[in-house]
Amino acid sequence: MNKNKVVLTGDRPTGRLHIGHYVGSLRQRLILQEDSSIDKMFVMIADAQALTDNADNPEKVRESVLQVAMDYLAIGIDPARTTIFIQSQIPALHEMTMYYMNLVTVARVQRNPTVKNEIKMRGFEANLPVGFFTYPISQASDITAFMGTIVPVGEDQEPMIEQCREIVRKFNATYGEVLVEPEIYLPDNKACLRLPGTDGQAKMSKSLGNTIYLSDSEQELKTKVMSMYTDPNHIKVEDPGQVEGNTVFTYLDAFVQPDSFEKYLPEYKDLDELKDHYRRGGLGDVKVKKFLLKVLNEFLEPIRERRAYYEEHPEVVVEMLRKGTELANSEAEKTLDKMKKAMQIDYFNQWNEDYNLK
Amino acid sequence: MNKNKVVLTGDRPTGRLHIGHYVGSLRQRLILQEDSSIDKMFVMIADAQALTDNADNPEKVRESVLQVAMDYLAIGIDPARTTIFIQSQIPALHEMTMYYMNLVTVARVQRNPTVKNEIKMRGFEANLPVGFFTYPISQASDITAFMGTIVPVGEDQEPMIEQCREIVRKFNATYGEVLVEPEIYLPDNKACLRLPGTDGQAKMSKSLGNTIYLSDSEQELKTKVMSMYTDPNHIKVEDPGQVEGNTVFTYLDAFVQPDSFEKYLPEYKDLDELKDHYRRGGLGDVKVKKFLLKVLNEFLEPIRERRAYYEEHPEVVVEMLRKGTELANSEAEKTLDKMKKAMQIDYFNQWNEDYNLK
Repeated sequence: MNKNKVVLTGDRPTGRLHIGHYVGSLRQRLILQEDSSIDKMFVMIADAQALTDNADNPEKVRESVLQVAMDYLAIGIDPARTTIFIQSQIPALHEMTMYYMNLVTVARVQRNPTVKNEIKMRGFEANLPVGFFTYPISQASDITAFMGTIVPVGEDQEPMIEQCREIVRKFNATYGEVLVEPEIYLPDNKACLRLPGTDGQAKMSKSLGNTIYLSDSEQELKTKVMSMYTDPNHIKVEDPGQVEGNTVFTYLDAFVQPDSFEKYLPEYKDLDELKDHYRRGGLGDVKVKKFLLKVLNEFLEPIRERRAYYEEHPEVVVEMLRKGTELANSEAEKTLDKMKKAMQIDYFNQWNEDYNLK
Repeated sequence: MNKNKVVLTGDRPTGRLHIGHYVGSLRQRLILQEDSSIDKMFVMIADAQALTDNADNPEKVRESVLQVAMDYLAIGIDPARTTIFIQSQIPALHEMTMYYMNLVTVARVQRNPTVKNEIKMRGFEANLPVGFFTYPISQASDITAFMGTIVPVGEDQEPMIEQCREIVRKFNATYGEVLVEPEIYLPDNKACLRLPGTDGQAKMSKSLGNTIYLSDSEQELKTKVMSMYTDPNHIKVEDPGQVEGNTVFTYLDAFVQPDSFEKYLPEYKDLDELKDHYRRGGLGDVKVKKFLLKVLNEFLEPIRERRAYYEEHPEVVVEMLRKGTELANSEAEKTLDKMKKAMQIDYFNQWNEDYNLK
């Protein structure tokens, strides 16, 4: 049995990645990438999953695949250490899903709280696509194909990992020990935060236009930061202000660096001091926003530069994806072969042995 | 658009084939095989489908694959004219199913009368496997992968074909004209009958032990025919008897040949005369059974002989399956390539063009 520590994670390509993704998961991947106790890390661009509820908009998915890959490279995911691949280009995943579907009941999927919630969120009712309904099963393929043992996801995704573990146990019990059970990897709060939209809404979303992309230009960034949601009751500079639920401060919590104040706002020692002043009153939003703009810009500038290089050299990105996808393919095929042998549907191999054929 | 006439049909390998299969569908395939207006015929051994409700018994499915292939060859399916292949060995089918699942709603599958009926028949309730639930979608892959236009199935399967046609229309409307709509091919009653079990039950079934296999020996055949269900009220020879619902006569209807009486029962001109006598009284069951035995034996003898050859030469069967599966694979891959191009997820091809890569 494989005892390697293998990380499997990824994103649905339905748009460029934003700083919410960075704070929520990408930053953590960079940490895991440096962790020497990890044997392998796979990052999947989950286009097939994106198609389950974007079947009529393949253009969006298609364009986003390359954009997401550029975002990965720009933030420092290193293809030499991390395998980046495209889900739809791994036929073994589809095949595994078909076999896993025999091991899960319809009632079991219906009970899955994450599925229930996502169905509600996406407004599916009578028109729920089968592909979306079954995606916990397809997600089990994504994880098990690479013998993934560590799956860093949010707490709300725990039922998905439990579904995968159930499939692994059922498969192994039915056909023999082939697959490994993954563990959910819940980040500590420092490494992973949920960032609200620039308008204070709970989530960044393209359709709400409240998103700061990793690829935003300095000018775009400025416009977005300067119009950010703060404390609606903090009207005049001298008014006392609230920092809780104040998006500008939430962003500062996520991005401020030890040396940020020294560099850009030396009159304050640290974030606590700044927050105190805001609470007391006498500190204007514009001043805090300008500071956040500098902090964010320092963070985004090198990402922007690297991204510009990849935008000018898409062939480098394509080649990286090709190599990653090839490697992922060969790993997934290896797992599928083992599964088919255990399921006894590797007929031709078996017959060759049985009847001494070549 | 492909205008070829392509037949797609097949069987679930959950046991050897019996004379019920012959009368219900195999005989018709032999007729279609001779039909010069047909461009191609594919016969699929549907092992992946069999696994949807036999996930815990792969052994049965596995053993049946070769048995069914031998049955095909023994009855005269000719691999030079008809492509026989194994479903699970065609990865493209699984991939297509995953994409078709995005085009069908859960509610739509739930409304499918064939699915409803099969769920009832198999006694699935809360424990319905997802793979079984979604099999109308997987069946659409089986048909469309080969651009099947003619699908010979029973009337009860009409909703399955309609589901396939809906998927074809939805795919073509969403992504462009790639797939062709199949037509159901309903046989005339002469070519296709539903044969009851030897005990008079509606269906032949392994578990009921009321089945005459194409591979039964002469002795097995004799035992089964001589103990067949007839008219329970026809107790003494002189009693008037009923031929309707009398299994022996139903079998004679299906198998008697123009010269059968001359050869084996010359005192009667034809089946009608025999039936009249039975109805009047004075004709014993044993006499009719002995006649049926001869008729059936004449039919089964050459099948038995050819089958004996293949049992001694499994390598011939394996080689036939390998070639058929290879051919089917290349056809299915061609269709999948067209689909992926239309869906715009043939990224690497597209990028190669866009960026002038090799």
